[in-house]
Amino acid sequence: MTTTTIDTRVLPSYVQGSWWEPRTGTPTRDASTGEVLALVSSEGLDLKGTVEYARTVGQASLGELTFHQRALRLKALATYLNALKEDLYAVSDRTGATRRDSLVDVDGGIGVLFTYSSKGRRELPNTQIIVDGDVENLAKDNSFGGQHVYQRLPGVAFQVNAFNFPVWGMLEKFAPAFLAGVPSIVKPATPTAFLTEAAVRIMVESGLLPDGSLQLVCGSVRGFLDDLDLRDAVGFTGAASTALALAGHPGVLSSGVRLTTETDSLNAAILGPDVDPDADPESPEFTAFVASIVTEMTSKAGQKCTAIRRVIVPVGMVDAVVAAVGARLDARVVIGDPRAEGVTMGPLASVDQRDEVRRAIDALTRGGGRIAYGSLDDPEVRQADGTVEVSRGGAFLSPVLLRFDDADSDAVHQIEAFGPVASVIGYRDIADAVRLANRGGGSLVATVASHDPAAVAALVSGIAPFHGRVLVLDRDDAKTSTGHGSPVPHLIHGGPGRAGGGEELGGIRSVKHYMRRIAIQGTPAVLTTLTGRWRAGAPKELGAEHPFRKPLSKLRIGDGIVSVEREITLDDISHFAEFTGDTFYAHTDEEAAAANPFFPGRVAHGYLLLAWAAGLFVDPDPGPVLANYGLENLRFLTPVSPGDSVHVALTAKEITPRETEDYGEVRWDAVLYNQREEAVATYDVLTLVAKEGPSNAL
Amino acid sequence: MTTTTIDTRVLPSYVQGSWWEPRTGTPTRDASTGEVLALVSSEGLDLKGTVEYARTVGQASLGELTFHQRALRLKALATYLNALKEDLYAVSDRTGATRRDSLVDVDGGIGVLFTYSSKGRRELPNTQIIVDGDVENLAKDNSFGGQHVYQRLPGVAFQVNAFNFPVWGMLEKFAPAFLAGVPSIVKPATPTAFLTEAAVRIMVESGLLPDGSLQLVCGSVRGFLDDLDLRDAVGFTGAASTALALAGHPGVLSSGVRLTTETDSLNAAILGPDVDPDADPESPEFTAFVASIVTEMTSKAGQKCTAIRRVIVPVGMVDAVVAAVGARLDARVVIGDPRAEGVTMGPLASVDQRDEVRRAIDALTRGGGRIAYGSLDDPEVRQADGTVEVSRGGAFLSPVLLRFDDADSDAVHQIEAFGPVASVIGYRDIADAVRLANRGGGSLVATVASHDPAAVAALVSGIAPFHGRVLVLDRDDAKTSTGHGSPVPHLIHGGPGRAGGGEELGGIRSVKHYMRRIAIQGTPAVLTTLTGRWRAGAPKELGAEHPFRKPLSKLRIGDGIVSVEREITLDDISHFAEFTGDTFYAHTDEEAAAANPFFPGRVAHGYLLLAWAAGLFVDPDPGPVLANYGLENLRFLTPVSPGDSVHVALTAKEITPRETEDYGEVRWDAVLYNQREEAVATYDVLTLVAKEGPSNAL
Repeated sequence: MTTTTIDTRVLPSYVQGSWWEPRTGTPTRDASTGEVLALVSSEGLDLKGTVEYARTVGQASLGELTFHQRALRLKALATYLNALKEDLYAVSDRTGATRRDSLVDVDGGIGVLFTYSSKGRRELPNTQIIVDGDVENLAKDNSFGGQHVYQRLPGVAFQVNAFNFPVWGMLEKFAPAFLAGVPSIVKPATPTAFLTEAAVRIMVESGLLPDGSLQLVCGSVRGFLDDLDLRDAVGFTGAASTALALAGHPGVLSSGVRLTTETDSLNAAILGPDVDPDADPESPEFTAFVASIVTEMTSKAGQKCTAIRRVIVPVGMVDAVVAAVGARLDARVVIGDPRAEGVTMGPLASVDQRDEVRRAIDALTRGGGRIAYGSLDDPEVRQADGTVEVSRGGAFLSPVLLRFDDADSDAVHQIEAFGPVASVIGYRDIADAVRLANRGGGSLVATVASHDPAAVAALVSGIAPFHGRVLVLDRDDAKTSTGHGSPVPHLIHGGPGRAGGGEELGGIRSVKHYMRRIAIQGTPAVLTTLTGRWRAGAPKELGAEHPFRKPLSKLRIGDGIVSVEREITLDDISHFAEFTGDTFYAHTDEEAAAANPFFPGRVAHGYLLLAWAAGLFVDPDPGPVLANYGLENLRFLTPVSPGDSVHVALTAKEITPRETEDYGEVRWDAVLYNQREEAVATYDVLTLVAKEGPSNAL
Repeated sequence: MTTTTIDTRVLPSYVQGSWWEPRTGTPTRDASTGEVLALVSSEGLDLKGTVEYARTVGQASLGELTFHQRALRLKALATYLNALKEDLYAVSDRTGATRRDSLVDVDGGIGVLFTYSSKGRRELPNTQIIVDGDVENLAKDNSFGGQHVYQRLPGVAFQVNAFNFPVWGMLEKFAPAFLAGVPSIVKPATPTAFLTEAAVRIMVESGLLPDGSLQLVCGSVRGFLDDLDLRDAVGFTGAASTALALAGHPGVLSSGVRLTTETDSLNAAILGPDVDPDADPESPEFTAFVASIVTEMTSKAGQKCTAIRRVIVPVGMVDAVVAAVGARLDARVVIGDPRAEGVTMGPLASVDQRDEVRRAIDALTRGGGRIAYGSLDDPEVRQADGTVEVSRGGAFLSPVLLRFDDADSDAVHQIEAFGPVASVIGYRDIADAVRLANRGGGSLVATVASHDPAAVAALVSGIAPFHGRVLVLDRDDAKTSTGHGSPVPHLIHGGPGRAGGGEELGGIRSVKHYMRRIAIQGTPAVLTTLTGRWRAGAPKELGAEHPFRKPLSKLRIGDGIVSVEREITLDDISHFAEFTGDTFYAHTDEEAAAANPFFPGRVAHGYLLLAWAAGLFVDPDPGPVLANYGLENLRFLTPVSPGDSVHVALTAKEITPRETEDYGEVRWDAVLYNQREEAVATYDVLTLVAKEGPSNAL
């Protein structure tokens, strides 16, 4: 049974392995009713000790786990949270989130954990470092080379989150840091910290978190950068002004704290010049475009850093778009307390936030915007009990659509009204549309709605340098698209310039943001020791026992076999051509083959060589090697003519035990040589090998 | 015929397509004689216009070239410079560089161009964008996915270089920017700007530089950040104080200029606990370690950001190391004018620089250091005419080795004497050695000299998070190592914290630093259009003509073939086992195969399937397809049992014409299906295809 914090008077933090409570704090309120929910403060909290706890206890406990073990822990956490998410929905209601909004925040956050768990096991080795790229040979005799590896940062991931996604915002930063092996300190925004606290409480109660891997500081963290240095990373999501202060802090500038910021963004949606509802009233791109705008204005009451703020359409389409968006808002939007039936848009997160949005709309109108839909008045809202009346204590605002006659108004490109607000401007041609989109000064995301490949190519390549993500919307993905405003964990989230310049998510890309890339130079033997991956030139163990007889528990990298030789005859080649049907002239026609620039005459099929190599290295009886499930990086280097002989060297290169299976993967380095010891072909053979072999193999 | 600038009174800049001369400027002098060589100033230069020229003319001209075309241009530039390098050596003499030093600077710089040319053609596609990672499928019906791509920055690469490598320092930043397609503005350090100018003059005279791709600004660039924004990148090498000022500039903080800095670094060399010259007077690791220290103290007179400043050895080894380094310095070092015969160490770059180093040595002694070798006195030096006397106008200094009894002295870990200076300290155990090395606060490089794998592993993993590069020196690479102090273009150059936090070189890694990563979302058709790589689900062209009959000039991505079906019998499997020798039980023993967790019973060999697939898709007669040179990403997904039938779908996925050959590479997407349309195997087939086929193919 999990208790939530909305009944507690003061909101605790979770630091140094236990819950800590302030004496008093700043009140935070229910967004719909204004009722005080919790008092938030960090007054008296030992922030320095919290950082030190992460660097020592957190680093040590995460350091005991491999990537796959951490990934499985993420899956278990996700499963545990998933079972208790109704508890989180109940708390989330208090933030003004509708159930659909909570799906984005709560389920979206849990989804990030699942995705990182899956990617961690599929895309990372079952070790603690990531090998980056191939070995670079730096000596003629191969005795010296270089290899890049990623190793985790030795400090803490300090995560300062925004108020709008109290759960997702925490988990999207926590998951990659955890997978990298770096402990997190989470600092939620005060207005919705009670929801983050509820999620952290569940995670702590799960017993699944390694000691010190996650700490929570509710309230101010003023001065926290003084305690951080080059060992640490800071992830910040929030206002550009705060990000600027962080970036200008001496700790960031001189002692090397790694800072990632995600700030304001005036995201654009661009309607392609090919989309014309006058010519085609059923235009699927027009319909999808209008639906996207309405979704982004109303989801989370527009409080999303990814929401569409600038609607950029052909000048002749402005009226049509304004009308269609208005009609859809009329048809779809019911404003009210999220606990009331049928409500599709809740209040903003707080009255302060609503007032700030009103001021931003004022500024937009002073900058040339005219309100084409909605108003600044208190809207009529549906109360929790179902009655409809003008809002009193809640932070409600109606959707507001503006239009600007001057598409170059500074206001429309610079003022972010962080609520249910968007502005429509007109463009003359594609170059103009690109220019206007880029006037946002760097954005998180843009949508391009078009079904004309040339227009799509011109728009996307033109705006790409100013954007983190571009979604191309057309009839074929309108129904299946994950949506303009939804960052997905597989893809990077972040944008240049005004958007903060940071990069989050993107699968394993963000795991690397919590690690350091280093170049290691040394002999093949040293590189093998340091990377856990066997390198050509490193020692081999060519023992009496065939390495395919060794179960995973006994196999070591460098264990190998060198086969006997086998001669290839013209008959073999002819026979193979006939049996397989591969009668390519290089194998069947001496004269034509000799005319080919790469062959001396008839040569053996590459696939014949591969098959024979398998015949040369195979161990036929049942044993720990269960299957050859694939092959990588095959290159045919030297043609093999009739009369040549081949032999193969196979060496265990990388061993990846599966945590949840009784087998693992072994990557073998394969080199096929001819009788002159020239490499004929090189490749990696991928096998599944039992951890403990069948008894006859032991 | 190339003229050098050392005879001119004022040093010109190369901006907006022509040479520009100031009226007067700051005098720069010959390092050995003090003779005035040139006056340097940018007073009156139109810096804003220079930036704008790069963004317009430079972007446009580089935008006409693909990666391979740019790479070939780099090779041509390298070849042109190489032919005229004697001219550069003559100018380089004036900077105080010995011929060996010039090899590092001039030949090293030219080597960077060659390496980037080669890597650009081998590791990048022949297009203008880099596809990053696999497509991420985001819809159950595969109609929507995401793909990351890198696209060049739309602005300028502004490169502020240090005085110590006037040629290499320019080219190591220029090469990756050029390859990315981003124009460079080079600002050399004033004391040695005359050498950079000489190199740029040769490059301009070669006629190989696209308009606006390289501009040179000699003299101050004060305020240059005011003209830059999120379109641009700044690379800075030099003093930490300047880097701090740059990083704190509003342009960097708020408008998103991308800044990479490489600053001070107190690099360490660590002698492993296993190395004991008392026990083994011939210890190859000890000899190599001492030789490295002497090389790094004297090469470029120690004016290298990568030089060894801190020599960290077991406490019991301090005396032995000090003695051995001193003896080797005595034996090897001849100080003098680089133009004199036999000189192995030249002056510092300027008298100012020498005085700064003297002050740093003073500070080190005040911090507890004792001078164990050398002195601050003006040394006797060999003059250009062969006479030996105490230096007069030149910037000479003898090598200085210090020792600290207190290994924890702040001075030794914080004061960088940028000259022929190193300090020796003792450590107690490996953990202590790691701690001391990391007290440098982030360094570019460290050497670990050891032949004990456990010591190497502990030292390298301990110091890795604080270093950009670690070189492991032992008996097996002592002769072939590229050396502690030499960044190689294949590996990253840069370090965290005090070292600036930047990352340069590293092959294609640094090309990406001049590009932006963006996530594109859309249908497979849209992703195919935007990336130039065919995606599963995108349209195919299954025309009447076999795609193997189409030369590269006519082949389009999406061109494909779907083969007929072929049934596989038990006889086929038995026959293949016998012919190839691959008698693995899964193919030969029904009972044993059925006991395997992955197979229903006897199954066809994977290599049989591959070979038959080739037989199904092959076009046997001579034609534009010249060879199958490899295969990638093969996965066997579904076992094939006797009685099953297979057919194959082959689709042109990526087309890479070779600029210097009459053929190119075509990557084909191959999917082998069974009779139930289940994917049996997926892989990429790599072929070489003639640009224009033999006449019988046209």
